[in-house]
Amino acid sequence: MLAKSMLTKSMLAKSAFLRACRCLPTEQVPVWFMRQAGRSLPEYRELRGEGSMLETIACPEVATEITLQPVRRYGVDAAILYSDIMVPVHAIGFGVDIVPGVGPVVAQPFRTAKDLQRLRPLEPTEDTSYVLQTVTNLVAELAKLHVPLIAFAGAPFTVASYLVEGGPSRTHARTKSLMCSNPQLFCALLDRLGDLAIASISSQLTAGASAFQLFDSWVGTLTVDQYRRFVLPTSKRVFAELKQQHLDAPGIHFGVGTGELLSLLAAAGADVVGVDWRVQLNDARQRLGNNVAVQGNLDPALLLAEWPVVAKQATDVLARNKGQPGHIFNLGHGVLPETDPAILEQLVGLVHGYRYAP
Amino acid sequence: MLAKSMLTKSMLAKSAFLRACRCLPTEQVPVWFMRQAGRSLPEYRELRGEGSMLETIACPEVATEITLQPVRRYGVDAAILYSDIMVPVHAIGFGVDIVPGVGPVVAQPFRTAKDLQRLRPLEPTEDTSYVLQTVTNLVAELAKLHVPLIAFAGAPFTVASYLVEGGPSRTHARTKSLMCSNPQLFCALLDRLGDLAIASISSQLTAGASAFQLFDSWVGTLTVDQYRRFVLPTSKRVFAELKQQHLDAPGIHFGVGTGELLSLLAAAGADVVGVDWRVQLNDARQRLGNNVAVQGNLDPALLLAEWPVVAKQATDVLARNKGQPGHIFNLGHGVLPETDPAILEQLVGLVHGYRYAP
Repeated sequence: MLAKSMLTKSMLAKSAFLRACRCLPTEQVPVWFMRQAGRSLPEYRELRGEGSMLETIACPEVATEITLQPVRRYGVDAAILYSDIMVPVHAIGFGVDIVPGVGPVVAQPFRTAKDLQRLRPLEPTEDTSYVLQTVTNLVAELAKLHVPLIAFAGAPFTVASYLVEGGPSRTHARTKSLMCSNPQLFCALLDRLGDLAIASISSQLTAGASAFQLFDSWVGTLTVDQYRRFVLPTSKRVFAELKQQHLDAPGIHFGVGTGELLSLLAAAGADVVGVDWRVQLNDARQRLGNNVAVQGNLDPALLLAEWPVVAKQATDVLARNKGQPGHIFNLGHGVLPETDPAILEQLVGLVHGYRYAP
Repeated sequence: MLAKSMLTKSMLAKSAFLRACRCLPTEQVPVWFMRQAGRSLPEYRELRGEGSMLETIACPEVATEITLQPVRRYGVDAAILYSDIMVPVHAIGFGVDIVPGVGPVVAQPFRTAKDLQRLRPLEPTEDTSYVLQTVTNLVAELAKLHVPLIAFAGAPFTVASYLVEGGPSRTHARTKSLMCSNPQLFCALLDRLGDLAIASISSQLTAGASAFQLFDSWVGTLTVDQYRRFVLPTSKRVFAELKQQHLDAPGIHFGVGTGELLSLLAAAGADVVGVDWRVQLNDARQRLGNNVAVQGNLDPALLLAEWPVVAKQATDVLARNKGQPGHIFNLGHGVLPETDPAILEQLVGLVHGYRYAP
């Protein structure tokens, strides 16, 4: 069993995705899509029906199948665990639901120091055993396809924003207010959420995932100073502890609207930084330096246009990288539910077929 | 009458706001707030009651009073006409309503070339005579206070996004899709909306407003290439035609999340570029060069924090400008409805009292 797992590991290490995470050259540009598993796929909608998302995630057979659907359909270079950034806080009983068409909703938002008590440490093998079962299933299935699995968790700031706001927010005003008015409490909150992220990702990696992505989706709403002072220290700790525990698992750091923060996202310890469509990939490269890989950066909204438009934009993204090793093609944010899967299929073909002049 | 108006004009030209628009030195940093008139003010809520916003705008006495309320209460350096970016398209009968808690809603969104016929030219003296009456009232009232009035209109792209989406949108997917799939139609749409913006702003300036702001609030959702190719040409034409007709009225160009677009917003012909909180003011200066003034850039969400937090952040903004002429203090986006007016009052005092070391 151990020998087999070692063999799988060394085979996966040669995959284009994991090599690109390490800025190593690859024959073709690897590609996967955030939210590749999910609402845009008819086979997903059929399988999931009307049930709650958190219940679906808690069912390893279904979550395994959902994770595999886009790998089979599109031939993407990586699978990402079907889960949600709110799973760990839900699992420790903070009182979270994911409401269709709304997003995560928190019954009793985080308000005072007393609420810290509601954030006990995560015991992955007990609290989220279903996640680990899904990962175990997936690693076995994906080994046959030579496809690595990406573990993930929400970054402390983004999860905190849901806990403090009580749900999705355009302004994040309560979060920013708490951050600036009571930095001590805010940092204590981020610290607990950092522990949750570490425990959750670490357990997924131990169960066999090959890489991880830390989603700090809403961090682009902050000023540079706020990020540096209130967010960077905890995110740094998350990457450092995960690196110490899982030296061979590259870490991806992602957020939207982070043009001013890119170098700080790398400074947090990421091997790969996600870049949305607002920043041109060559500019992102310049801000990040040569030792950090980039992931992105096609606008998911554009996938609702016709194929020639998508093809042109995707080619632009590829051309801007100029063939430099360390580019994982992806969208700048998740696949929109209205996206036609046929477009994504064509897109994978285009990326895999793209060649840089030698 | 003419002599009086000339006198007013030359007195206003000495105002800190108009001098800062020209990058001329001022004794104190001028300050005003986007949405300074509106939902955060109890006197506004009392005056407006539950009526429709478009109806309120169409009532010059009420719109005049609403515009003056924050000038009296806060002592800001500029008044901005109480109106909405959808007023011109509404006035020519495109079928727009502003729904409380939602925003602009379009009954029959823009879909095909046939919809261009629904965008006839604006005849300001007929279609929006109420706006011009409000401006005339305001110019008389504001002359007594030596406060200039800012005219405004929505920029072609942002107005187009509402017409195409049918309402507010997080992704602007339909707009981007139309832009890339049918650039000819999209540019024809922007062209008509450019004409509306020119006609609307020009009529407000003729009626006595001293400066204007072109709101391209959602343009930060575009890639740099999309902006350059599909938006910049029309915005350039708007500024150029207004400059030709009203040489002495400085133009402000504003959008959110425009870090990558700042130099292009200036290239459109703006004298002043609005900067949100994501970009540090000194970085914005670097991208814009010395001949363009900056407006911003405090995060409005922070105004929900306690005064010491607001004071620190505002001082940071001021310090980052290092006393360079051509800074108009403002928020990075509009005042949130929950904002305590007392905080804004203190903020105006802080900005006016701030002095750079000589």
